[in-house]
Amino acid sequence: MAREVMRALPDCPVCYLGDTARTPYGNKSPETVTRYAIQDTEFLLAQGAMVVVVACNTASAAAYHALRQTFDIPLFEVITPVVETVLSLPKIQRIGVIGTRATVASGIYERMIRERDPQKSVFSKACPLLVPLVEEGWMNKPETRMIVKKYLHSLKVRQVDALILGCTHYPLLKDVVQQKIGKRVRVIDSSQAVANSLVRFLEDRPELHDKLRSSDPSCLYVTDVTEQFAKIAQSILQRNVSLTHVEL
Amino acid sequence: MAREVMRALPDCPVCYLGDTARTPYGNKSPETVTRYAIQDTEFLLAQGAMVVVVACNTASAAAYHALRQTFDIPLFEVITPVVETVLSLPKIQRIGVIGTRATVASGIYERMIRERDPQKSVFSKACPLLVPLVEEGWMNKPETRMIVKKYLHSLKVRQVDALILGCTHYPLLKDVVQQKIGKRVRVIDSSQAVANSLVRFLEDRPELHDKLRSSDPSCLYVTDVTEQFAKIAQSILQRNVSLTHVEL
Repeated sequence: MAREVMRALPDCPVCYLGDTARTPYGNKSPETVTRYAIQDTEFLLAQGAMVVVVACNTASAAAYHALRQTFDIPLFEVITPVVETVLSLPKIQRIGVIGTRATVASGIYERMIRERDPQKSVFSKACPLLVPLVEEGWMNKPETRMIVKKYLHSLKVRQVDALILGCTHYPLLKDVVQQKIGKRVRVIDSSQAVANSLVRFLEDRPELHDKLRSSDPSCLYVTDVTEQFAKIAQSILQRNVSLTHVEL
Repeated sequence: MAREVMRALPDCPVCYLGDTARTPYGNKSPETVTRYAIQDTEFLLAQGAMVVVVACNTASAAAYHALRQTFDIPLFEVITPVVETVLSLPKIQRIGVIGTRATVASGIYERMIRERDPQKSVFSKACPLLVPLVEEGWMNKPETRMIVKKYLHSLKVRQVDALILGCTHYPLLKDVVQQKIGKRVRVIDSSQAVANSLVRFLEDRPELHDKLRSSDPSCLYVTDVTEQFAKIAQSILQRNVSLTHVEL
């Protein structure tokens, strides 16, 4: 997500916070995720952030409304843009969603899709092992392919036309997901859609865009520094990264 | 671990804290784990705990010394008892250890075993996916068996005589671990050894044992309440459990 935003808005510095001391969020309750998301946002605002992207589906599902009520700044979540993308595609009637336990339990995708188009069918599946597999770097292992196949079985049986990758870790598994769900299914992730909606938002607000351009340089904060995270961040951003440790 | 302690000391109430809002600890840095372990212990002491068991290998490896320096109470960790158990067994020359990334990176098992017997060979393997697999309840799935086999491969090649389950989640995978490492290997977990050392400690301190017997009734605290955790706790303790939510 950070990479897509950086690509889409190369002239805007990005202040990134990875709450690595408390992740994963995906198995936690909405109350705890909301508490963390509020602390995370407070931290970003204290660093001078003018626009905040909740770059995590679990936090978007659990905490977006609380964040809107708490903070008076432009706030982006990662669910609406992908819902709008999937609804704009032709010939999509049956939509599958995969995500963490918390995201799927929230029912947010079904609700948003049905509000906009009650004719669509939506089928969801929680896939709690996919985040650990990505974090272990096992993107192409046979065990990962078996687990993805098992998780996708119920969606495949329901013959979905599109599959939403409802977790910001899952694009790293896009190839294996595409292979297991079948090549006729459109597999959609949120990062491009979120980056596009940010770009459109700033095109309509040239003053804010100018202020962003001249803000402090990009910075990567983490609440816990581990070699593993530095490795993943480096491979995703394809550059040397320097992580600053903060306590929340 | 809680279950073994409750069985070994049925007359002593247990005050249990599961830091579910911040787990897993196993991929986090020693500094963060130590900070959490100190907060966890402070909480238990505030509830009237007189003896504290650090019932997690990652926290034992990272934080035990800091806890000893910070708190003046009897403190048990889960590493020494299992090390002493394995060294007391006959015909064990080559010892394997599996644990989280953080536990294995600490090198604590090698250090403790070699300090007591420099003749032993110790081989370790980090198995970061096993905790998520247990928490997903996938104890007997073919994918789990494949992953365990893959993790154990390097220890099997080294022909270990004993294998230490260096994580309090792993006893739930004991059958599959035993099957994959081979039946001639002694697979050892810490819960019985820790409970035994607690019993011996209290046998030598009848006054403390009496005070414990008359302390507040058992209580289970968690920093995050999720259905999944309640389900796991219930299946491990084999009784209905009531979880009290606390914020740390």
